[in-house]
Amino acid sequence: MTYDLLSGVRIIESSAFIAAPLCGLTLAQYGADVIRFDLIGGGIDYGRLPCVPGGRSIYWTSLNKGKRSIAIDIRKPEGRELLQALVTAPGDRGGILLTNVPAEFLSHRTLSLRRPDLISCTIEGNSDGSTAVDYTVNCATGYPMLTGRGSRDAPVNHVLPAWDVACAYQAAFGLTVAIDARRRTGSGQTLRIALSDVAFGVMSHLGLLTEAALRLPEREAIGNDIYGAFGRDFVTSDHQRIMVAAVSLRQWKALVQACGLTDAIAAVEGAVGVHFDQEADRFEGRAIISGLIQRFVGAKPFATIAESFNRSGVCWGLYRSVSELVSEDSRVSAANPVFTQIETPGVGAHLAAGASIRFTQMPRGQTSPAPLLGQHTDEVLNEVLGLSSASIGELHGRAVVAGPERDPWRSTATAPPVS
Amino acid sequence: MTYDLLSGVRIIESSAFIAAPLCGLTLAQYGADVIRFDLIGGGIDYGRLPCVPGGRSIYWTSLNKGKRSIAIDIRKPEGRELLQALVTAPGDRGGILLTNVPAEFLSHRTLSLRRPDLISCTIEGNSDGSTAVDYTVNCATGYPMLTGRGSRDAPVNHVLPAWDVACAYQAAFGLTVAIDARRRTGSGQTLRIALSDVAFGVMSHLGLLTEAALRLPEREAIGNDIYGAFGRDFVTSDHQRIMVAAVSLRQWKALVQACGLTDAIAAVEGAVGVHFDQEADRFEGRAIISGLIQRFVGAKPFATIAESFNRSGVCWGLYRSVSELVSEDSRVSAANPVFTQIETPGVGAHLAAGASIRFTQMPRGQTSPAPLLGQHTDEVLNEVLGLSSASIGELHGRAVVAGPERDPWRSTATAPPVS
Repeated sequence: MTYDLLSGVRIIESSAFIAAPLCGLTLAQYGADVIRFDLIGGGIDYGRLPCVPGGRSIYWTSLNKGKRSIAIDIRKPEGRELLQALVTAPGDRGGILLTNVPAEFLSHRTLSLRRPDLISCTIEGNSDGSTAVDYTVNCATGYPMLTGRGSRDAPVNHVLPAWDVACAYQAAFGLTVAIDARRRTGSGQTLRIALSDVAFGVMSHLGLLTEAALRLPEREAIGNDIYGAFGRDFVTSDHQRIMVAAVSLRQWKALVQACGLTDAIAAVEGAVGVHFDQEADRFEGRAIISGLIQRFVGAKPFATIAESFNRSGVCWGLYRSVSELVSEDSRVSAANPVFTQIETPGVGAHLAAGASIRFTQMPRGQTSPAPLLGQHTDEVLNEVLGLSSASIGELHGRAVVAGPERDPWRSTATAPPVS
Repeated sequence: MTYDLLSGVRIIESSAFIAAPLCGLTLAQYGADVIRFDLIGGGIDYGRLPCVPGGRSIYWTSLNKGKRSIAIDIRKPEGRELLQALVTAPGDRGGILLTNVPAEFLSHRTLSLRRPDLISCTIEGNSDGSTAVDYTVNCATGYPMLTGRGSRDAPVNHVLPAWDVACAYQAAFGLTVAIDARRRTGSGQTLRIALSDVAFGVMSHLGLLTEAALRLPEREAIGNDIYGAFGRDFVTSDHQRIMVAAVSLRQWKALVQACGLTDAIAAVEGAVGVHFDQEADRFEGRAIISGLIQRFVGAKPFATIAESFNRSGVCWGLYRSVSELVSEDSRVSAANPVFTQIETPGVGAHLAAGASIRFTQMPRGQTSPAPLLGQHTDEVLNEVLGLSSASIGELHGRAVVAGPERDPWRSTATAPPVS
């Protein structure tokens, strides 16, 4: 874990895909004991792409860093009973379930009979219980028709599963709030969070829904231009592409100065009758501004532009591929305390992000890798449920639970690291 | 507020743009008293697009719902002193600053002299303090080269400020964790959260950074296809575009059944030697699968497809514009408890989202609209600092503070609603 802040909090995670595991990861990195339950041999996302060639899923191991893993066969009544016991085990910071895989034996109603102060958080597609994933919610937001040169006939989906990500962090926030509320009131809480509500909620908070409801002129796709202010991409004489933003007045003045455009901008303002100090005028006049800036940027090599922009305090960035980000950007390196080198069994040695927030008055811990499936089965059954070695051995014997020996990638995990 | 969960928590917000205001909004909707400080007449984002024609910013009013507003002239020493006093005022759930606008007089070091157990949360561009906004971070992630038909020469920026959104919710989570930690230890906390760390952290958690570091084949832009599983957009015979996802095995089987493709898929599997029950094979064979599904979808009108897909439990969604979402999708309507009709001064009557999480055991409150600038100046100075009416009057007289009469949109705000 990165920070010992949520110590004592124990969460049982029954999950798949992105939103729920990322929520659990967040809680784990801030100190909670997140015990991820999986089927023996792995759930539906245990082998999800990308994978190490012939080996483990980088997707799964990335989303499950620092959790404990218990493998249980929930097709057996004894397995279901064990999982229920784990969720409802005593402890004033325990009794918490995080799931996106609804099952009657893990329903709030069922579990709260055993522990009335249960906190459960269920992530769902739509709030009516119908299925939806990030992609089938996103198509309804209107964003694909506004992205790039997207249109009704050629919408452009986002690739980042942004609604899953927003959902995960809201769920982590909500669980923390619920834990605090239970401490004060003694009452459990049932949290339900629908991906569609997350998406449309964000759109309400960003003003898009009200803009449309008031029948303001409909937005159109404007490529890489920033809506409402000034910003877009430019290409240097040596074919490097950069993104430039002038959202604040200070950023705008820095940009004009760096490009030597003070007189030109003043002349345009006078001739056209606009005030580019005002954000809305910059947006309206963005084609003119972009033309002037491209003349400057396109005439000089990247190194010159970078030096000039940095000296003037321009807000800008270089376009990179993921490979370039990893190999060339110092923000993704061990020089950044958010990242540390870890060794994931079956994947190898690689950088991994801990908590993105820096609590600068606290020691920052190491980032822990993902477990093998069932790596903590025995210790969890002993610690949380107080089962004896003999009882645990019997559960193994009846194939109700399993340890890491049943992880299908165990052999790759014990081989020398890949990288 | 939606839920009375963070009652007693008092946060002073000094912010602009998206991440910090959205963090404050989140805390306010879950019951915190979020007091947003603004300059008299408004800060740099008070008039940000989109705006009601001749009226207030829909952007600003959407991001500041349910907060209290105090307008202070911080160019005057007295104004700075007032703001410091507000942040450091007594109360075991007070003493919390949320900002993305660093200023020495509001630095943790300065403020903690007055209140050693201060909690401050600073949202920044890069962790070295250099400027960055969502757009100038996003260009470095590699996502624009993977979006739509994006490439190195024609990257496609996302339009949703996804990193701002992810940052906001993480910051709300972090502040809640810090409040809990202070209660237990008595110690204040300094939280710093860089937009670039949020973005690259998410990319680490989703596996993209490790995939690139291990030099797996670089991902390419694949349009609207879902990476790693099966899903993409299809067009019905009456030109409706839908997004279909088969991420889980159940979703895949439902899709095959709904499209009457059981035999065709089995034949392809046999002929090509793949197993589409496996996610990775579906991804690899997505062109074949898509061709078969488009034949089915393209031959029938939308109503038939929708009925058939719903009956079989296919995971799918309709592409909509923002206007269509608002006018046609019941998930954005008063039928959804997340949304309620509110009246925002100067904007009019419109639907607005409260908390996206549903705490189903708690009463759900009304969503409060954004304040006028300085609407709560007097009550905050009285309640939090205990100033008398006479003292507050003197502050007004010296133009150190202002009430809503100095809101530039006050006249539109008191006019009849627009819609």
